[in-house]
Amino acid sequence: MNPVENSPLDQQYVIGVDFGTLSGRAVVVRVSDGLELGSGVFEYPHAVVSEVLPATGERLPADWALQVPNDYRDVLRNAVPAAVADAGIDPENVVGIATDFTACTMVPTTADGTPLNELDRFADRPHAYVKLWRHHAAQPQADRINQLAEERTEAWLPRYGGLISSEWEFAKGLQLLEEDPEIYAAMDQWVEAADWIVWQLCGTYVRNACTAGYKGILQDGQYPSKDFLTALNPQFGDFVDDKLAHRIGRLGEAAGTLTEEAAAWTGLPAGIAVAVGNVDAHVCAPAANAVEPGQLVAIMGTSTCHVMNGDTLREVPGMCGVVDGGIVDGLWGYEAGQSGVGDIFGWFTKNGVPPEYHQAASAQGVSVHEYLTELAEKQEIGQHGLIALDWHSGNRSVLVDHELSGVVVGQTLATKPEDTYRALLEATAFGTRTIVDAFRDSGVPVKEFIVAGGLLKNKLLMQIYADVTGLQLSTIGSEQGPALGSAIHAAVAAGKYKDIREAAAAMAAAPGAVYTPIPENVAAYQALFNEYRTLHDYFGRGTNDVMHRLKAIQRKAASKGSASAMAGDAPPSNAASQASQALEGATA
Amino acid sequence: MNPVENSPLDQQYVIGVDFGTLSGRAVVVRVSDGLELGSGVFEYPHAVVSEVLPATGERLPADWALQVPNDYRDVLRNAVPAAVADAGIDPENVVGIATDFTACTMVPTTADGTPLNELDRFADRPHAYVKLWRHHAAQPQADRINQLAEERTEAWLPRYGGLISSEWEFAKGLQLLEEDPEIYAAMDQWVEAADWIVWQLCGTYVRNACTAGYKGILQDGQYPSKDFLTALNPQFGDFVDDKLAHRIGRLGEAAGTLTEEAAAWTGLPAGIAVAVGNVDAHVCAPAANAVEPGQLVAIMGTSTCHVMNGDTLREVPGMCGVVDGGIVDGLWGYEAGQSGVGDIFGWFTKNGVPPEYHQAASAQGVSVHEYLTELAEKQEIGQHGLIALDWHSGNRSVLVDHELSGVVVGQTLATKPEDTYRALLEATAFGTRTIVDAFRDSGVPVKEFIVAGGLLKNKLLMQIYADVTGLQLSTIGSEQGPALGSAIHAAVAAGKYKDIREAAAAMAAAPGAVYTPIPENVAAYQALFNEYRTLHDYFGRGTNDVMHRLKAIQRKAASKGSASAMAGDAPPSNAASQASQALEGATA
Repeated sequence: MNPVENSPLDQQYVIGVDFGTLSGRAVVVRVSDGLELGSGVFEYPHAVVSEVLPATGERLPADWALQVPNDYRDVLRNAVPAAVADAGIDPENVVGIATDFTACTMVPTTADGTPLNELDRFADRPHAYVKLWRHHAAQPQADRINQLAEERTEAWLPRYGGLISSEWEFAKGLQLLEEDPEIYAAMDQWVEAADWIVWQLCGTYVRNACTAGYKGILQDGQYPSKDFLTALNPQFGDFVDDKLAHRIGRLGEAAGTLTEEAAAWTGLPAGIAVAVGNVDAHVCAPAANAVEPGQLVAIMGTSTCHVMNGDTLREVPGMCGVVDGGIVDGLWGYEAGQSGVGDIFGWFTKNGVPPEYHQAASAQGVSVHEYLTELAEKQEIGQHGLIALDWHSGNRSVLVDHELSGVVVGQTLATKPEDTYRALLEATAFGTRTIVDAFRDSGVPVKEFIVAGGLLKNKLLMQIYADVTGLQLSTIGSEQGPALGSAIHAAVAAGKYKDIREAAAAMAAAPGAVYTPIPENVAAYQALFNEYRTLHDYFGRGTNDVMHRLKAIQRKAASKGSASAMAGDAPPSNAASQASQALEGATA
Repeated sequence: MNPVENSPLDQQYVIGVDFGTLSGRAVVVRVSDGLELGSGVFEYPHAVVSEVLPATGERLPADWALQVPNDYRDVLRNAVPAAVADAGIDPENVVGIATDFTACTMVPTTADGTPLNELDRFADRPHAYVKLWRHHAAQPQADRINQLAEERTEAWLPRYGGLISSEWEFAKGLQLLEEDPEIYAAMDQWVEAADWIVWQLCGTYVRNACTAGYKGILQDGQYPSKDFLTALNPQFGDFVDDKLAHRIGRLGEAAGTLTEEAAAWTGLPAGIAVAVGNVDAHVCAPAANAVEPGQLVAIMGTSTCHVMNGDTLREVPGMCGVVDGGIVDGLWGYEAGQSGVGDIFGWFTKNGVPPEYHQAASAQGVSVHEYLTELAEKQEIGQHGLIALDWHSGNRSVLVDHELSGVVVGQTLATKPEDTYRALLEATAFGTRTIVDAFRDSGVPVKEFIVAGGLLKNKLLMQIYADVTGLQLSTIGSEQGPALGSAIHAAVAAGKYKDIREAAAAMAAAPGAVYTPIPENVAAYQALFNEYRTLHDYFGRGTNDVMHRLKAIQRKAASKGSASAMAGDAPPSNAASQASQALEGATA
């Protein structure tokens, strides 16, 4: 045994590495108390490949989003040594490493874990690359999966709020089979990137319980049946057996130990513990020491992911999923989400705010967000006269409908940008309230609300969330929630704590700001939430299906638009010619 | 008789003067064919008095809008001579003058027509001034009038779509009585500015049939009864007899001849015909030669006023009014309106368009409106995926509800400013379609659609209106619609034509551009209009009364906001103190 293993815990360190959409971030953490000593970041050289395949210049279809797996190895090569250097520690004192990843992000590999795009013969094939979580081109396959599962009343369907996402393993796998059977045949494993990076670190492939459950439809030890898969596509019948099924690792377990090769990449000692993979959102719960039933952690960024443990299994309508040990081993992990949050605020500041506001923000040396927040903060609740629905990016929970869209009701000639901005902030809070209510109504009460992610910096937003939900809200006191959460898993994997709960108690970030619901604000928001709920059900539950019809009209119009654009300067049709004459109509 | 009277009509001229909200505009027109020879404009020195009374610096309450009547005389003194000079004609060849005015704009006067604010002892009294059409502070009085009229099922109420406006003579008169009884007592006449200016020109007070009907609730020769007025307020019982009733002049009639005093102001010959007063919107119909039943004239500017003649009396739900001889003597004049049109587009370009768009417009040397229109024009119908309700300034027809507000449904993270702009253009077209449908459904079919006003320059907007209504749309070929319409009335008053129809046939502006509905666009818009109508009824007819509730919440919040602002830096309440502590919550 390494002599470090016997040194006091305050002289031992673990590494957490968070793989995001555009970069990876490593943090060095002290085992005894979770102190963050240093960090390093590395941006993926290929970022997100959504337009053109780098190897060939081939243009990708709409809704594609690929990544290049060697970029992830480069994070290990660069961000980890940078974090160790930043911390100023001796790498010999590092006892474990753990990672978290975006999900569901899938790597097609050979039997030894080589990504297919790294084989020369497949470097020019889009399907040989990593499919990022936000690759949405498998929607037709997802639709078929959902339709068939509903027809067959598959038992697993309610565990996912009634819908499987196009982002997940099965839809993406079926797309691969149907669009590039040769790559599908050459693929020995269809691997979550969360597990692939662990495989790279320790040379062992272990599927983590979190993604296997939330994204891989593993429930009660079973995947969807061969019979079901064959009904989808006869060639897909063996998908689970051939490409997917593998040993499941519990969160916090060690998947193996660091290989010599990975030790050389990272500068860490070979042989240290490598934890089972995890997901960026779920790993935040221990970082916030929110691992008990009823502690809801909302990771609020461009979108929001809500994770919460429960001690019983309940089927909550409209949630993303419930998975045994999905967040902490031994508890049921519940996940819900809002597909647009910070993205909506960003869209508004980019597209809906006039020049004077940009100038004023710039003169004050603040961002447009900060300037609008400052103005919105001065208002009484309801003073803007608006109510909005936060579905500009669809609705993940509780309606699970990506064809829904945004609404603003109540604008007048006196409505200012800060009014609409505040209404959008509030709409996302009402969206969270809807999720909290769904949990409560299904017998999984939310007792406490903890926020991680970039939006926690907006104090007005945090107070609105506390007032709208009526829950005390605390923010995580670390800017590295996911990486810290991974580091906690590394400490457990290294045997320094008996389980995640014990490690979280010792190592979680100190609590950040606390926002207490203000009784008169809670009452004022209840009235507005009632309006939100009425509109939510009217537009979202089919009373007026206008949003779906508008999307259908839009798609038809867009295809017509591109068809006529392709026609170029062909002679105008009779109708178009009449139109152009009408438009040119002479003025006397 | 003046020798000019015997000269050929192509050597005789008439003057039309259009009194708008901020300025008056005179035009010199040839009697024989309506040719516009010259024009002059004069801006009211006091514009709209809505903040502070000039004489005293006294701050006016919210929703007040006053004017200073001598500003109108200044138009006669300045714009008329300027127009004559611009035309290069000998003023001796002018045979008549006519005017049109905003309505309902009310002047409290002595028995000789002196405005009460011109009496020294009343110069400091806000109620002694002109109340402009958009003075909205008499809403409580209007509400009482409507409630009582409905209770008593007054026969005149359905002629106004079921609601009397706070802008009209009775609501404003009742407010005057109740808020300043001394001024009310001193007032001998409560005079439409349309008639007051004629009184200034010819020394004779004649009430024009148009405003007496549309604004003065004169129906079938009767005003609201003494009994009704007494029930409103015992002191108001004699309002009609004491302050309002007077000889009614038909449109196109002469009210009298130009006085020596007015001749001196205008430089025109004393003794020429002065026509009965008229309203800026209604007077456009003859200017467009749209004086036959079924020809709908839409005067499209910040708001839209729709006027149309019919040969039968029908009660059309939600119209502004139907008046015998209200547009052309001998026909029933129908009026409807949209309270926000250009105002909504203006609000959007000012409040909802980001800097890049302003820069791009400026680089192209076009307005932001033109730039957005150019982008919106490239879209297929429905491509933006949006549907909007055009109620940012309430809804005049057919819902008659100023507490309604705007809606946009369907925005996503991909929605661009030109998408929303186009959706707003379309929403106003759907609003017009709703009015056209209401006329049709009540047995007053619209056969032709003629557009006057500033918005006719937007070709995309005009084509959208043609496609949405399915009606051939023509625009008036004059930029001086109202003043030309007045000039036509002057020619009839001077006896040059037997009636307005004959004069309009000779003198109306040549038709402008013509827009023909494009069949495939008509079909595409029908689908979107169906969505508009569903939302229109849902939000506008009480299924979901959210807009009224939001307004109530807004008023309550605003009064709370101003109360706490008035409290200044008093110590915070317990709740506020908790809030501020929560907001300051320490970050660990």
